[in-house]
This record gives sequence, structure tokens and C-alpha cells, in this order.
Amino acid sequence: MEPYRMTATEVVVQIQSGKLTVEQYAQSLLSRIAKRDPIVKGWAYLNPELVLEQARKLDQTPLESRGPLHGVAVAFNSPTYKDDAPKVDAASVAILRQAGALILGKTTTTEFAATTVGTQTTNPHDSTRTPGGSSSGSGAVVGDFQAPVGLGTQTGGSTIRPGSFNGIYALKPTWNAVSREGQKIYSPILDTLGLYARSAADLQLLAEVFALRDDQPVDAGAFTVKGAKIAVCETMVWPNAGPGLEAAMAKGAELLEAHGADVEDIVFPDDLRELPEWHATVMLSDGRTAFLPEYRFAKAQLSRELVGHVENRHEISRAEQLRAFDGIAAARPVVDRMLGRYDAVLVPSVPDEAPKGLESTGSAAFNGIWTSPLGISICIYWLLLKP
Amino acid sequence: MEPYRMTATEVVVQIQSGKLTVEQYAQSLLSRIAKRDPIVKGWAYLNPELVLEQARKLDQTPLESRGPLHGVAVAFNSPTYKDDAPKVDAASVAILRQAGALILGKTTTTEFAATTVGTQTTNPHDSTRTPGGSSSGSGAVVGDFQAPVGLGTQTGGSTIRPGSFNGIYALKPTWNAVSREGQKIYSPILDTLGLYARSAADLQLLAEVFALRDDQPVDAGAFTVKGAKIAVCETMVWPNAGPGLEAAMAKGAELLEAHGADVEDIVFPDDLRELPEWHATVMLSDGRTAFLPEYRFAKAQLSRELVGHVENRHEISRAEQLRAFDGIAAARPVVDRMLGRYDAVLVPSVPDEAPKGLESTGSAAFNGIWTSPLGISICIYWLLLKP
Repeated sequence: MEPYRMTATEVVVQIQSGKLTVEQYAQSLLSRIAKRDPIVKGWAYLNPELVLEQARKLDQTPLESRGPLHGVAVAFNSPTYKDDAPKVDAASVAILRQAGALILGKTTTTEFAATTVGTQTTNPHDSTRTPGGSSSGSGAVVGDFQAPVGLGTQTGGSTIRPGSFNGIYALKPTWNAVSREGQKIYSPILDTLGLYARSAADLQLLAEVFALRDDQPVDAGAFTVKGAKIAVCETMVWPNAGPGLEAAMAKGAELLEAHGADVEDIVFPDDLRELPEWHATVMLSDGRTAFLPEYRFAKAQLSRELVGHVENRHEISRAEQLRAFDGIAAARPVVDRMLGRYDAVLVPSVPDEAPKGLESTGSAAFNGIWTSPLGISICIYWLLLKP
Repeated sequence: MEPYRMTATEVVVQIQSGKLTVEQYAQSLLSRIAKRDPIVKGWAYLNPELVLEQARKLDQTPLESRGPLHGVAVAFNSPTYKDDAPKVDAASVAILRQAGALILGKTTTTEFAATTVGTQTTNPHDSTRTPGGSSSGSGAVVGDFQAPVGLGTQTGGSTIRPGSFNGIYALKPTWNAVSREGQKIYSPILDTLGLYARSAADLQLLAEVFALRDDQPVDAGAFTVKGAKIAVCETMVWPNAGPGLEAAMAKGAELLEAHGADVEDIVFPDDLRELPEWHATVMLSDGRTAFLPEYRFAKAQLSRELVGHVENRHEISRAEQLRAFDGIAAARPVVDRMLGRYDAVLVPSVPDEAPKGLESTGSAAFNGIWTSPLGISICIYWLLLKP
């Protein structure tokens, strides 16, 4: 197998055993990138010379000083101002670098990772479709074998949506489980670092590096689908579902039942029906604070959408902002109890297949309801089949 | 009056009327700083040449392009890694600079603004005493007439405590009313930008620049102490009070009553008695995330206290963390209703006069309970008389 096609877990084994050098691995990825980037356009900054220089340094690292990600290539997103390389690592990038990761480069995002206006990045499975956003580039390059793992960020549906559209695995951990230090703030109570990979084992590998720990370690080996209690939750935004989602959800439940799972439909309590509106209210109000500096300094360079946040175009009062904030806070333990009785919960990640065109990154309708109630440790999202 | 002794509001008038140039003002402050800094030691970085260069540029700014803070000197804190000037402005500094402020320099803080181990900064009123912390330098230089206004940050009591100990006015606005972009994260749900000044009018001036707005604009002119409904809340941590606080609180209530206020004692509902513990639990747990990068890269340079956060030395389980987080969230609307019936609430800011010695910045016992319930728009803190 060409090294660029390997998962992170496979790369670790190959490099540890000496069958592959980090430089050979980097060369393989750089060839893939050179061939595919003109179509996918997922990178905002990538300097092949710097990548190879890092790779050679990693190859010279003595065995005993190597970290758990030694040589594993990572794509990171960074919704900041310039197209060049950041001068200081964000906390997440620093943690990966310290674990031995080969930092490839910066991937594209929508404006400050805060809008749904598409970048030039295309879906690797069909370049006439959006890869989703806001972490468009990370989702696309991982889906396209240009990097095995990548970082995203989620305030609405910015990690899970590209995960689905690019046919890869995405994890939005519990809020503030990973430091967002050094990344642009949109909403401090919603913003969460997200992870992309092409295998569940790779997400586990990243989770360990980021010290994501529950009180009770999960014994994955002990889990069987047979006899597992699985909930299916269409959510209150199900009217947004298209035929792709309807078919995928039905197929998912059918497969789980066929393998012996105990599948049960669940619904949100009626007094949480406003959860999607509360999420939007908090996000827009926090945007009023977040983009004030850019508004004051360079309003002309901000999109109409972000200018609208600062000018409070939606006319959200402080009382409404507080009501939404408190509504989400009160929902958290309720949702925890609602989901806590199951081994896993199957929920939609996107309304349908990735939309045609690059103008919009698609709808986050199914994501905000899960991004808001912070207490959920890990959400299992159903990934739509790739288009 | 020597320019360095003026409040920001006075400086604005003097400079607008042409009676004072920004350069003359800067010279006056720099002389004061040169004389006093060897004793107070409140600056982490200050380059007089750069200050004068900025001042001359501000003097050359055409009248029609001047901002509301034109020429007003500002001290800012920045708990980051190096003792030099940050390469990029934090959001708060950018907003001040855009409003025409003269950015003087960076003031001292305790380690990452996250511990109570004192800096070398002394209390300007008595150099054998602490100025408080974590925003030690900003509080001290504003109290010492080295700057009229300053920025702080509060996760526990890091703004209000130095405000009290240095005998100045301090405002901790509602959480996320001002962007903390570019400042070190300790606890994303508690961290708040704070403001220092030597007059209430100056705090109002800063509040306008930072676009702090309630739904109903407050008509300060219409307020009279006579007939005002004022609550006095000793809080559940009152057993921490020393004789200085006891006397100040009694005197405060007495003066308010003598001026015709309707003063009433209030207490927290019994089911919120754990608020101080919940605050500590959230802060320590968030510190576990916040300092992981520093721990991985340079554990030896971190204090024992911060290493303890990452290693979870207090053995806080995820279940306890969530319970504290949800407890605070549920307390928020309760505290809002409790305080919302009064024109103002008088609460302690510190247990007593500033402690002797520089080893500790003192106790934040009276602050965490107000930092946690985010809904409180503006807390009126009682400032202890300077020692």
C-alpha cells in the first residue's frame, strides 16, 4: 500500500518497526498533495520544504524520545488573518507536535470559521459538491488521503458536517476537553476543537494524546452490538431531512437490529423544543462580542453576515440572550439523563448528501442541538454515505 | 495639577481642548513611572521610546479621525510567556488602540494569572503589602497614578481583589461582554476581562468603548441614593471576614441609610451554599485542560500548583466537574432574580486589608461566588479603604 493511504495507526506501526522513514512517508503524502491539491484545494498554507525538514528531524529523534504520534502527519485548521504559517502554535498543535506529529500545514476554513459561505475547496468524492464547513479543508484533505488525521473546530456543525460530507470519521469531544488556546474565538461556550480521521482507532489514538478521559475507562473490547441498547433520535429538526438522510437513518436502525441491538426511538422533551433557536441566539450574541475588534479596524473586509453579528441585525435583546443561555444550561442535565440510559445514540449529522456547488457549505440544522448541551461526553454521529 | 494625576475623563478634555499634547502627557507619566517603578515594580514591559513615538503619532492625528480615548494612557496585563511586548494585540488592546488610547506597556500578573503566589509588585500605599492579584501590576500602577486606567482579567477574584487593595475602582463586566481573544485561557466559562480606573466616570468611558450595553440604557442622572433599594449580602463565606471588612460593611450600610436608602439584608438560598466549592471545582478542572500544553512541553517551569491542575491532584471526577458546572448554571437565574429586585447590592470584595508581605496575593474567597453565576450584569463591589 502507498504510505499516503495508511491510517495513522498503521503509520505508527510502520515507522516504529523501521519499515518506513518519516521522510519517505512525507514524500508519499507530498506527491499525493501535488497531484490532488489543484482539484481539492484544501490547503491554505503548506511548504513542502518545511515538511521534509521536520520529517528528517523526526527520523533523527532517538527511539527513546519518540512520542505516541511519532511521524504521523496532521492537517490543522486555523481561522486567523493571514494565509501564511502562524508564528506560534495553537495549544492543540503544540500538543500534537510534542507527541511527535509531522505538522503538514494549515487547511482552509470559511471566514473565521463562522459563516456558511464556501471556500474554493471541493469535495474529494465529487468536485462539483461542497466538502462542508467551516473546517472545509481539514475534512477534504483527510477524506482525500492527503493527511490521515486533521483538526477542526465546531461552534454550530463545523466539524461533524465536513466529517459526513467527506465520508470520514469525526469526533466533537465534550466542550473544553481540549484547549482552544490560540484559535479564533467565536462563541466561548460553544466553540469546541474537533478531530478527523479515516478510522475509529485513529480517533482513539488522538483522544489519548489529548488526554480525553472519562471517570471509567471504556472497555471497547467488551462491547458487542448484540444486546447493546441503542437509541435513535430524529430530533425536533427532522423536517429538514432529505431522502438521503431518511434512507441512511432507516438503514442504520435496520442494520443495528439485524445484528441483535435493542433499538429504541427517543424524542426530546417538549420544553426543549426551542433548543435550536437557543443555540442560534447564543451564537449570534457571542458573535457580537467576538467580531467587534475586526469591525472597528476593518469593517469593509468583514462579510455582511459578521457585520450583522456586531450590529445585532437580528435585534436579540440581552434578556433573550440570557434566556437562551439559561435554557441551554438547564437542558444539559436533562439531555444527559435522556441519553445516559443507552450505550449509543444514533442521530443525523446532516440533512442529506453534500449539496451541489461551492457557494454554501450546507446546513448545520442537525448539529447545533448537540453542540449546545455541553454535558454530552461523546456523541455518536451517523455519517452519511459519501455522495 | 500634574497631568499624571488626572483621570482619563480629565485627560480627554485637556487634550481635546489643546491645553495638553499627548506627548506632554506621556512625558509626565514616564517621569512618574521612572520615579515610582523601582518601588512599585508593576511593569513587565515598558519602552519609553515606543510610548513617546506613539504619543507623537497621536498628536499628528487630524481632529476628525480621533477616537473617544484619544491620548488616554492604558496599562494592560498579558499573562503570556515572555517579558517582551506581544507581537499581536489582544482583542481588548486592539479595541482601545482603535479608540485612540496610548498603550503604555504590559503589567505584571501572577503565573498565567492563575495562582496566588505574589509577583515582586508592591502595594503603592504601603510597599510592605501585596497589591493583590492576579492582575497585580495593573491594579498597582493605576492606584499609583502611573496610568489612569488599566486592564485586568478575572477567573476567581483577579480584578476585584487588586481593585480593593489598591484603593481604586474595578469593574468585572458580565462574562463574555468583552472578547478575551489573545489572552491566556484559564477557564473559558469563568475568565472575564476586567477594568480599572480611579473614577466611576472613567469606568463608564471604558464601558462605552467596549460597547457594554444593556437593553435599557441606565439614566445615571435619575438615580438618587435617597429612596434607592439597596441590598447588603454578606454571603455564605462571611466567616472569612476580618475586622477591616466588618467595619467597612457596617459603615457602608450606615452611610447608605443615613442618606435615605432603603437597605435590606439578603442571603443566598440554602441550596446554593455549595457555590464556592462549585466555583473551585470548575476552575481546577478547567485548569486541567488549560495547562496541558505547558505541562507537556515544560513541566519543570510550571509551578507545583499548576502541575497539580493537570495531574488532577484534587482528584475531581468528571461527574463532580459536571455537577459543579450544572450547579452554577442552575444558580444563575436564581441569583439574577435574587439581586434583580434592588438598585444595587453591597457585597464584600476582600476579607480584610491587603495582607503584609508579597508571598501571597490574598484570598479570593468573596469573589468566586460572583464570578460563577454569569448572568449578573454588573456587580457593585464594596472597596475597602486603602490600608
